[in-house]
Amino acid sequence: MDSLTKPTQPTAPHGYTPEKEALRKRLNRIEGQVRGVARMVDEDKYCIDILTQISAINAALHKVSLQLVEDHIGHCVVGAAEESIQSGDASIVQDKISEATAAISRLLR
Amino acid sequence: MDSLTKPTQPTAPHGYTPEKEALRKRLNRIEGQVRGVARMVDEDKYCIDILTQISAINAALHKVSLQLVEDHIGHCVVGAAEESIQSGDASIVQDKISEATAAISRLLR
Amino acid sequence: MDSLTKPTQPTAPHGYTPEKEALRKRLNRIEGQVRGVARMVDEDKYCIDILTQISAINAALHKVSLQLVEDHIGHCVVGAAEESIQSGDASIVQDKISEATAAISRLLR
Amino acid sequence: MDSLTKPTQPTAPHGYTPEKEALRKRLNRIEGQVRGVARMVDEDKYCIDILTQISAINAALHKVSLQLVEDHIGHCVVGAAEESIQSGDASIVQDKISEATAAISRLLR
Repeated sequence: MDSLTKPTQPTAPHGYTPEKEALRKRLNRIEGQVRGVARMVDEDKYCIDILTQISAINAALHKVSLQLVEDHIGHCVVGAAEESIQSGDASIVQDKISEATAAISRLLR
Repeated sequence: MDSLTKPTQPTAPHGYTPEKEALRKRLNRIEGQVRGVARMVDEDKYCIDILTQISAINAALHKVSLQLVEDHIGHCVVGAAEESIQSGDASIVQDKISEATAAISRLLR
Repeated sequence: MDSLTKPTQPTAPHGYTPEKEALRKRLNRIEGQVRGVARMVDEDKYCIDILTQISAINAALHKVSLQLVEDHIGHCVVGAAEESIQSGDASIVQDKISEATAAISRLLR
Repeated sequence: MDSLTKPTQPTAPHGYTPEKEALRKRLNRIEGQVRGVARMVDEDKYCIDILTQISAINAALHKVSLQLVEDHIGHCVVGAAEESIQSGDASIVQDKISEATAAISRLLR
């Protein structure tokens, strides 16, 4: 096998690149949801209905985060594992794993 | 005391109305943050940096949610408590409390 | 109406008292779940299966938290609203609401 | 390099094994914290103080979860990456990554 993480194009450096279109769509939708909440505030909508919309935005952001975490592990961490194997230097993959865990920790807060 | 929850103007029906300006500013900023994340995806920024930005949006949304929860308890729940006291019907405030707890539960998920 | 928050017995000072039995049962079960996770670690169970159990504990703790939040709003906040109405001092209920919101904020983190 | 994930002893099959002692200590402490909350309920302690203790338990469980996630990525995922590289079968590491992402998703909820 050449590589588990070989980018399909030279200009596609990150793990999420193949899912870029889907990610952009999700983010556009979230932007629209945030604007919708601002409009609800302008129109003096009921606070509980606004909170329900915010919970929907939270859930949509979680999906984006998980997509990025999955892509990061699948590409950056696995790529670093390959590099560590080739070079014999385990610290390359260790650094990526620490970075990923720190990002997951920030999401859990 | 006239009322704990008397609206300052007749057109200000909800608890968050006095903080409307501040809420709108926070929501505008969040909208900009979401747009910033979309731009980072377009520009192939590093996934961990995107995740850090999403954690910042999560935190900003939590602040908006808490503001709304506080205003809801302070106005709608307390207003319903007054109504329950005046009418002798405890179900008025009970309904508002159940509604608030359900909204908090959705935020915790 | 006598009171929305009148304790049924003089020795039952807090909102959660009527649900004490149910709360204790939930907490006993959670204690057992934590012990179960410790046993899984001892027996070298698969990390993903341990994480699944921890997610179940998180969900169970959220239910306990929500019960306490609901009881707190229903008894302490509503009781403070009554006191504020009787005394004309809105700060009594305001203090309880700030305290409740701070507790909800800690749960959301 | 022999292996990035070579277990130090033949009977230590999982990633968290080197940290087993630390994990057990954390879990023992969490069990004590849950028992402490049960005692607070028995003694009719103030609901807000109980909620503060529950937030501390949530934070302690998050730390245990993150330790397990980090160990899982560092051992099971990286080990599967090595296997995928040796066998040329990318599905081995893909399966582990999907499993890890699903576990993280359950933690975020």
